[in-house]
Parts: sequence; C-alpha cells; structure tokens
Amino acid sequence: MTDIALINAAAARLAGHARKTPLLNAPLLDAVAGRRIFVKAECLQLTGSFKFRGGWSAISALAPDDRGKGVMAYSSGNHAQGVALAARRHGIPAVILMPSDAPQVKIANTRAYGAEVILYDRATEDRDALGARLTAERGLTLIKPFDDRQVIAGQGTIGLEIAEQASTLGLSETTVITCCGGGGLSAGIALALEDRAPGMMVRTAEPAGFDDVARSLASGRIERNARTTGSLCDAILTPAPGNLTFPILKRLCGPGLVATDDEALRAMMLAFTHLRIVLEPGGAIALAAALFRDDLPDTVICTASGGNVDPSTFRMALDRHAT
Amino acid sequence: MTDIALINAAAARLAGHARKTPLLNAPLLDAVAGRRIFVKAECLQLTGSFKFRGGWSAISALAPDDRGKGVMAYSSGNHAQGVALAARRHGIPAVILMPSDAPQVKIANTRAYGAEVILYDRATEDRDALGARLTAERGLTLIKPFDDRQVIAGQGTIGLEIAEQASTLGLSETTVITCCGGGGLSAGIALALEDRAPGMMVRTAEPAGFDDVARSLASGRIERNARTTGSLCDAILTPAPGNLTFPILKRLCGPGLVATDDEALRAMMLAFTHLRIVLEPGGAIALAAALFRDDLPDTVICTASGGNVDPSTFRMALDRHAT
Repeated sequence: MTDIALINAAAARLAGHARKTPLLNAPLLDAVAGRRIFVKAECLQLTGSFKFRGGWSAISALAPDDRGKGVMAYSSGNHAQGVALAARRHGIPAVILMPSDAPQVKIANTRAYGAEVILYDRATEDRDALGARLTAERGLTLIKPFDDRQVIAGQGTIGLEIAEQASTLGLSETTVITCCGGGGLSAGIALALEDRAPGMMVRTAEPAGFDDVARSLASGRIERNARTTGSLCDAILTPAPGNLTFPILKRLCGPGLVATDDEALRAMMLAFTHLRIVLEPGGAIALAAALFRDDLPDTVICTASGGNVDPSTFRMALDRHAT
Repeated sequence: MTDIALINAAAARLAGHARKTPLLNAPLLDAVAGRRIFVKAECLQLTGSFKFRGGWSAISALAPDDRGKGVMAYSSGNHAQGVALAARRHGIPAVILMPSDAPQVKIANTRAYGAEVILYDRATEDRDALGARLTAERGLTLIKPFDDRQVIAGQGTIGLEIAEQASTLGLSETTVITCCGGGGLSAGIALALEDRAPGMMVRTAEPAGFDDVARSLASGRIERNARTTGSLCDAILTPAPGNLTFPILKRLCGPGLVATDDEALRAMMLAFTHLRIVLEPGGAIALAAALFRDDLPDTVICTASGGNVDPSTFRMALDRHAT
C-alpha cells in the first residue's frame, strides 16, 4: 500500500476510538506572537498525547493471531501510555519495559491502563536483550515508537484532520510546525498533507542542543545527538531520526526549527493563559517555535503533541513566566 | 418565539463564530470518580468561557441601528471578555464597567479585546447610576449577564451540542451537571435538552455557602445568598437566581448540588492531570460535584464552563492536591 493509503486505512480503524482533536486559536495569543497561530491540541487526545493514534493503528493492523498474544513497547512516557490503553481496548495483553527511574506517575498511569510494567535498571541491564527474551518467550509483537509504517500512518491521521480543519478556515498554504523526536508524527503529518493540502509545508521543531533532525535535514544524512538527557523536553529526546522517518522528512519538510527549554516553558504559560490547555515541555516546542522564531509566514499551524507533565514542571512555567 | 426556537436561531447566528467545544473523558478520571464522567470543555471556547456564546447571541440579535451604537456590560470577569470580543467581531463599540479592584489580568484582557473599560470604586460609586448615565448618553444597549432571553438562548447552544455529542456515545438518559451562578447557562442547557434529549436531567452545581439556586429549588421561590464574596469561585457568586432563569430551572432541573472550594481545587488538579485542560474554580464546580457527590447515576455529563484563572490560584490547586 502507498503511504497515503495506509493513513486512510488507519483513519478508518481509528474512527470512533481516537478523539478528533480541536484546532484552537486565541486573538490574544496571536497578539503576543505577531502572527496567527492555530494549535492542533493533541494534548486532548486519549492518554494525553498523539501516541494513542500510532499505538491503536499498529495494534489494529496486526494479524488476529499475533494480536491475541499481545504487544510490547519500550518507553518511559507517552508511547507507553498510548500502547497500554490501545491494547486494553483491544482486549489483549501489553508488556511495557520502563526504566526504574521513570517518573512514578507515568509508571502508575501505564499500570492503570492495564499494562504489565516491567522495570529495568538503565545502568546495569540490557533493555534490548530483556525485550527480545520476553517477546520470544511470550510471542509478543514489539510496537516501535516511530520507525514503523503503521505507527507513522496512525500519527498521519492528524494530518488528515489538519487539512480538513484548515480548509474550513480558508487556509491552504501555510506552514505546519511539528514537535519532533524520532520523526513519526512529523513524517505522518507530512505524508497526509502531501496528499490533502500540498500547499502546506511541514517544519519540525526540536529543543536547542537536541536538534538532530534539523541538522540531518541540513546535511542530507542522519545526524545524531551527542546526548539524550539534559532537556525538559523528555518526550522528544531521541538519539537520531529513524531509518523510515528520515527519508520522508528529507523529501517533504522545510528547514528544522529549534527553541530553548525556557521558550517551551513560556509557550506552556501562554497556552495556559490563552488556550486553557496543559502542555508538557516537549509538547510545547512547536508552539514555542511558532511564537518566537522569525522566518515564518503570517499564519502558522502547530501541533501541541502532549500534556503529560508533572505538577512541579508545570509550576516552573507558571513561576518563571506569569505576568 | 419559543425558547427552543430562540436557541436554534442563536445556534445559526453563532455558527462559524463560536467554537464547538469537545466532550472530553478519560479512563483514569473515571477510575477516581467511580463513574463515567464526560466534560463539556467550554474553557476551550473563545475568551475562555461559555460567556462568548451569550454575548454573541445578544449582540447579533439587536436591531442594526441599536447594534451600531454599541453595547455595555457590567462584569469583572468572563461576561466582560465574552461581550468585548463579540462586540469587536461585530465591529461595534463595547463599554465595560469593571470594579477598580478586579484582577489586573481581566482588565487587561478586556481592553485587549478592544473594549473601553471604565473602572469604578465599589465602595463609593453607584455602578447602576453610572451605567444608566452612560447608556443614555451614548445610546448603548446593556447586555445583561444572564437574565436576558437572547443570552440564555446563546448559552443554550451548549445544550444542543451536548445532545448531539451524547447521542453519538449512545447516551440518552443521564444527568447533566452545570456550573451555576445566575442560571443563564443552566436554564439554556435545560431548555435545549428538554427538546433534544428529554431523558436527560439538569442539576445545578454551586459553591458551598453560596447555594442560592439549590435553596431556591428546594423552597420553590427565589432565595438569596447572604454574601457574594468569600469563595474562590468568583465567576459564579451571584446574589440570587434571575427572574427569567429561575422559573426555567424550577420547571426543568433536579435538586441542586453543592461542592466546596477545596473540592473545586481538587477537580482542577484532576482536570489538569487527566484531561489536560485549565479550569478556574467556578468552572470546575460541576466537575467537583460529578466526582465527589454520591447520589448520581453511573454516567454523568458536566460543564467545564471557564478557564480564566490566575496562576496563583492554579498553583494553589497544584500545591494542595498533587499526588
């Protein structure tokens, strides 16, 4: 199947299960930005991030016999929760390997969605070996976080919705800024828009210091981050773009954008004040770019990809940037 | 026109101007509540509360000559912002009388929506006399906050949306809990549901100590609050139900519900964690009742009527109720 056919098929499987999220805007936010900003609020998706779409898409695409044996994922955050809930709603087991130092609330939530959480010690245990043994023993299927065509197709359903929602606003030529980790969301949206709104251009947004995608787009080959810790944007600190996602990004996206952690916190505060949505730092990075970068058109659309944030981090945004 | 005809006409005038807000839910919120809760997220409405609907409905219903001269409102909060933006988008002047001790952010926002804000001293100036003089001098039309048929009709469009959204979920018989001040929102929703979803029952929610509507429903006549300050739920501290709204509430609503300020703060924290929306205390009181009262069915719908909250108040919810 072509990429767009996979996305359309994923949309059909997601209908009635994932939420169609609103495209929000606010006159007073536009006044701060000096441009019109529309925000695709995936923080309002089930499990609080777009990852539910990819998880549902991948699980629902499995052959029934494989699906029945269950799925596995590696994740300390949003992908864990998305896969866990999608599995529960399919009535199948999910095993999530999480580092033992993951935030307690994320471990608790993943368990609350019905998944079996297996903790491992990042320093002393080999996650991949542990995962391989479990999948072999139990016949589980690994659901990768981004480098999987069905996962990309699931995230691409957001692009279908953006095209439709933008069309009712009379927008056909604009820039769509995506929060970017491994590139599954960005690639999926870019593929959907290529078909439905070819006048739109996708640009990725990443945290300063972790701009592997921006550098890869600039050099034309996969570049890696020197480290994968040290930013508040924990949800999108992947080592490098994926082998499946990068060729799509390279073919379809404009130059990558970068914003600082402090700009992400300020974007969280502005989203709190003017849109009344809760964003996590990694989910606010595209809004931060839309607000604070210069080389953008008068109207932009950005993803608000997740809102699973600890109260202490949210308090930091309020304390630093309340006016 | 009948009430439902007014609501249908308001919906036609609001189409393309107000946002159709989502009906949100979350499995982990349901687990806390012990029942299924669906939240009509009017905090995501333009200006951050449902008041934009009533303001738009009233202004768009004026005769063109009257409308052209402009409108006036008394309000320290959400009604001010709703009327200000609705007036600006009609291209007409708006004068808002606000107490000089209103929160600076609400004054600034109302001005940012283009309204002329006139401050008065609550202790020494007579607001009604000041307002009467201004309306007479300038030919302004007063837009009342709730006791106006077109305002009630505008808020009633939320009821049309709830009936439609609930129907797609297979819900026809349930309780709809509304945040209640003067009763415009509650009356509008009750009138819409009487026509579109007669199996649903509306129940008002108010802050403990300011339960004029609950007491009025119990006694069958308009009861007053002893005071109108002293709760965090500033948006809904009205002295008594309205002369237009109360007969509607009396005819259509079940017994009133009450929740404490601390329960409203806890509901704000749970909405932050599980729905990723920002609520103000008065906008969270119906969710608090849905979460913490006992005499309710297995599935309820509640309004989240506003999200214009100071960072310091929001921080209070995070500090007290973070787990």
